[in-house]
Amino acid sequence: MSSHIVVFLPDGACLEVESGRTILEVANAAGVPIDSSCGGQGACGKCKVIVSLGRPGGKRGDLLSKEEVEAGVALACQATVVDDLVVEVPLESQRGELQILMGRAEPAEAVGEADTLLAGRVPLALVSPEEETEASDDERLLAGVRETTGESFSEIGIDLPALRALPEAARGGGWKVDALVGDFDGRGRVFGVEPARDGAAYGLAVDIGTTTVVVHLIDLSTQGFVEACASLNDQIAYGEDVISRIIHAQEHDGGLVELRQAVRATINRCVREVMEHHGVTRDEIVGAACVGNTVMTHLLLGIDPAAIRREPYVPALRTAPTLRAEEVGLDIHPGAPVYLAPCVSSYVGGDITGGVVATALGEAPRLTLFIDMGTNGEMVVGNQDWMMCCSCSAGPAFEGSGVEYGMYATVGAIERLSYERESDGVEYMTIGEAKPRGICGSGLVDGLATLLRAGAIDRAGRINLGFPSRRVRVRNERPEFVFVWGEEVGRSDDISLGEDGIQNLIRSKSAVYAGAETLLASLGLEAGQVEQILVAGAFGNYLDAESAVTIGLLPDVPLERIRFVGNTAVAGARLALLGRRARESMTESAGRMTNFELSVVPGYMDRYVAGLFLPHTDLRRFPSVAGRLELSA
Amino acid sequence: MSSHIVVFLPDGACLEVESGRTILEVANAAGVPIDSSCGGQGACGKCKVIVSLGRPGGKRGDLLSKEEVEAGVALACQATVVDDLVVEVPLESQRGELQILMGRAEPAEAVGEADTLLAGRVPLALVSPEEETEASDDERLLAGVRETTGESFSEIGIDLPALRALPEAARGGGWKVDALVGDFDGRGRVFGVEPARDGAAYGLAVDIGTTTVVVHLIDLSTQGFVEACASLNDQIAYGEDVISRIIHAQEHDGGLVELRQAVRATINRCVREVMEHHGVTRDEIVGAACVGNTVMTHLLLGIDPAAIRREPYVPALRTAPTLRAEEVGLDIHPGAPVYLAPCVSSYVGGDITGGVVATALGEAPRLTLFIDMGTNGEMVVGNQDWMMCCSCSAGPAFEGSGVEYGMYATVGAIERLSYERESDGVEYMTIGEAKPRGICGSGLVDGLATLLRAGAIDRAGRINLGFPSRRVRVRNERPEFVFVWGEEVGRSDDISLGEDGIQNLIRSKSAVYAGAETLLASLGLEAGQVEQILVAGAFGNYLDAESAVTIGLLPDVPLERIRFVGNTAVAGARLALLGRRARESMTESAGRMTNFELSVVPGYMDRYVAGLFLPHTDLRRFPSVAGRLELSA
Repeated sequence: MSSHIVVFLPDGACLEVESGRTILEVANAAGVPIDSSCGGQGACGKCKVIVSLGRPGGKRGDLLSKEEVEAGVALACQATVVDDLVVEVPLESQRGELQILMGRAEPAEAVGEADTLLAGRVPLALVSPEEETEASDDERLLAGVRETTGESFSEIGIDLPALRALPEAARGGGWKVDALVGDFDGRGRVFGVEPARDGAAYGLAVDIGTTTVVVHLIDLSTQGFVEACASLNDQIAYGEDVISRIIHAQEHDGGLVELRQAVRATINRCVREVMEHHGVTRDEIVGAACVGNTVMTHLLLGIDPAAIRREPYVPALRTAPTLRAEEVGLDIHPGAPVYLAPCVSSYVGGDITGGVVATALGEAPRLTLFIDMGTNGEMVVGNQDWMMCCSCSAGPAFEGSGVEYGMYATVGAIERLSYERESDGVEYMTIGEAKPRGICGSGLVDGLATLLRAGAIDRAGRINLGFPSRRVRVRNERPEFVFVWGEEVGRSDDISLGEDGIQNLIRSKSAVYAGAETLLASLGLEAGQVEQILVAGAFGNYLDAESAVTIGLLPDVPLERIRFVGNTAVAGARLALLGRRARESMTESAGRMTNFELSVVPGYMDRYVAGLFLPHTDLRRFPSVAGRLELSA
Repeated sequence: MSSHIVVFLPDGACLEVESGRTILEVANAAGVPIDSSCGGQGACGKCKVIVSLGRPGGKRGDLLSKEEVEAGVALACQATVVDDLVVEVPLESQRGELQILMGRAEPAEAVGEADTLLAGRVPLALVSPEEETEASDDERLLAGVRETTGESFSEIGIDLPALRALPEAARGGGWKVDALVGDFDGRGRVFGVEPARDGAAYGLAVDIGTTTVVVHLIDLSTQGFVEACASLNDQIAYGEDVISRIIHAQEHDGGLVELRQAVRATINRCVREVMEHHGVTRDEIVGAACVGNTVMTHLLLGIDPAAIRREPYVPALRTAPTLRAEEVGLDIHPGAPVYLAPCVSSYVGGDITGGVVATALGEAPRLTLFIDMGTNGEMVVGNQDWMMCCSCSAGPAFEGSGVEYGMYATVGAIERLSYERESDGVEYMTIGEAKPRGICGSGLVDGLATLLRAGAIDRAGRINLGFPSRRVRVRNERPEFVFVWGEEVGRSDDISLGEDGIQNLIRSKSAVYAGAETLLASLGLEAGQVEQILVAGAFGNYLDAESAVTIGLLPDVPLERIRFVGNTAVAGARLALLGRRARESMTESAGRMTNFELSVVPGYMDRYVAGLFLPHTDLRRFPSVAGRLELSA
């Protein structure tokens, strides 16, 4: 079989590959991030590339216009390598280079009473052989660590690499050393020893989402936030949601390994990026706390998740032991502890456990509904006395997938949006005040709401072609509403919202709303009885409560009861990194939550279908929205 | 019904049995061959054993003298086990051909309830998802292990590879699985999971000597000995003794790595050999207990031993944590625990700790001197109340190195030797009754003694060229004495002992004797006050006490006080493999021994020089030898 060279621009990456692989596969292998929300099915059209040299094989795909085909545009997931190729990846098709997001993390102020970090650098002055001739080096080190860490650990061990480093480090540093100590489920482990120096120690808080991976770099000496990085999860190439990932792991030889490598690669790419920005070395990152849904937790560890989608939906693992980074495959200090938040059930994972701890839901005196919007929408209802949780398949629309100009909440994303009918004008704000690149979750919620209120779309989500605005138009036979004219911001195309995207958003919001309603109904409760609604997720830095109620994503309760709490998953991970109390609280919370399986409740599907309108088929459930729509009509 | 541990010396075999069985029955079960011509009727008196620790039940039998009873002698067929026992099987009571090294032992039959093995295969019937829908696989496994192992472990964790194997193993085996569980310093770790099968589980007892590595394969289901393998330590290429190895590690780039790889390769070669002989696979070997001197312990783990030869002689490590085989580099199940016996000081290592536990020296009511002859000669003096130890550099002459026809105690080695002047004849026995290949330690001791008594060598170790025997000759300008004529046994060369070898043997024996004398003197003791001398080491299956005194290796005490106890290092390793009580006893014993540095005592060198004669410059210290030499002169 012949092989060909493929060069990717502007990246410059190149790879020699055998004939027949798709450009997307080659890009993945070369570490060139290309957007492909549909998992390489040729359905989303996000992976457009320009083949500027050579002729690709395979299909062109139906999503390309004649002009595009003439210009060398191809869908990376459909076109194959049968020739040497130079492939340009336009900005719109790049993923990654996503700068910041979530968890607008201010440097935390120092915390009170000392808690036990997941890992840290512990400076020690060891007893020298001159002072005491009998003890061996390992005993001097253990004595020093015990004295310094006090009651923190039930027992303390020294890892082999630390034992190896010890003789030279101790003698080179005049018996002053820095020990890297990790909390492995209550047992202390010295995993590194260095001659004493004013060295840094960093930790990671990692949110492993089905669609997006977020990594926060934390300075452990100040407990302060340093930088965040987000990236689409490379696993997307194998399917959009957890179910398709499980199927991939089952049905493809080596599928589980591919998925494991994909998520590791995604995390490690983010880690590299924050390291490079701050001149941090690999061995200075001494611990990582991760949260992920149950399937992500399985896949990161390479554990077969097959049983998760078979009744009775038993996960292989709920509580992972704290592992060494080298076991997990994270490119940080190889001996560093990697903590994974415990999962509740097959579909309520460590990200929710993290969120419950971050929001202190388990200590709330008031009846609280917590909703975490991700590719799965998970929710918990309860208070200090009880907690019940469930999960629904929302899809990644609010993360930007399945919506043509949708994007993840990162620099350039429109996060607030409103249309004024009189002036036919749109006001918007972008993250980082950058040139608009697309619309993130919070902007999409605003967009749907503002179009509905203006009458530019109807309650079924159809564009009103008679709406008196030049922003309403038909492109490629599909009606859409233009929010940003390309020429005004120096883009070649306009940023719009079309009916396909709107339908995906409606399906997402309806899944979540129906889930909340079903969960509450199972407890004999109605939305009005909920005293606070906390909304988490990757919407952006912002979510407008009125917009969310207007489109029927959230129930129609007094707006002051609704609070957007950001990415609570990564916030939970950060808490786990910084304190054993939080880690213990995770275990306790996960154990306390009662799991509720929506899929086995017939009422759920009915509620879902009833919710496929804006805000709902039954307007009586949304009296305030009904009032506003009437007013604006 | 209560159960007890019985340890057999010099074999090292040990077994846990229920109260009431005879020592002979237990010995048979443990594969220790004891002579019993009358079929266990108490009639022949051939099965005399010495119970050196614990009190046996049953009858003493009429065949024993009062002195024998006082010395702890019992008839194995009459005495019963009602206590933990250490039982010495004297040469006279051993049956059968002595095949290889220590521990000739056939697979033993199953035993009662066990102490906590270092590792084992634990069959589990897990609760299935049909019976209980909530729990995850890891929780089912943990519950099963906890139920089965009871109070054995303070906590139990599951290693990542076991978590990965679990979903398929559990479902494939109808929720019946075998868990491989290791004792990692009191913490249980499940390091493997397989569908339930009637699978084997083996362990290794490893004696890592400076010159020779010995590996015993043990069937963990029966606790029976399967096979032993010995090999010269590949590290010999980098120097003969521990000091030259340390220098190599220091002075050569990558020297430490070379030494580490050499000893690993040696062990792994032995492991491969016993595996191949018995069709055992790598993953069926689920644990290894190792003993080695302090430098060997450092080098196996890749820890720089440099400080060991610099005052104040501080080792980097005395107590290694129990590690995974893959960390140590042993080619057995990668997750299997590797236990290393704790060291006492830079020159008294885990091999001595093992020997002290195997001989129960720390519980001896009588003042005992324990000497382990290896490349270093280490010794311990003490009893149940105190223990003091030291080490001297003996060199490997008694292991066969530095002596032309010297060899390690294995098949074909001459282990008994005597010369008769009248007939000019030599009688000898070889290990395995094989064709003679060379002379091992016990044969060399006999050889020196018999030549000295005959007058064929003088007290300085010079061959008497006027001795009237055709066996005395000069070859390559060096005088030598021929023990075996090649033509008589179908060899092309004769097996002889020359002056160079004799000088090496004299230096070795003098180093050990001077060490013992200095150690005793430091306590204000003389050899005559020692109530028993236990001699261990790689001499073979046999050491003639009279010969050892004749050449001045051991002090001139009544011969019945001297007992050869075989390879106690590997016996200690086997005990550590088979029981946590032994492992705890190792820790306790290592902590109790007070180290004595011979090298800082000026008297030692004087004593060493005074000992460079046969038996000694000062014949008054060896009155019985002086008498015999006079008689024979």
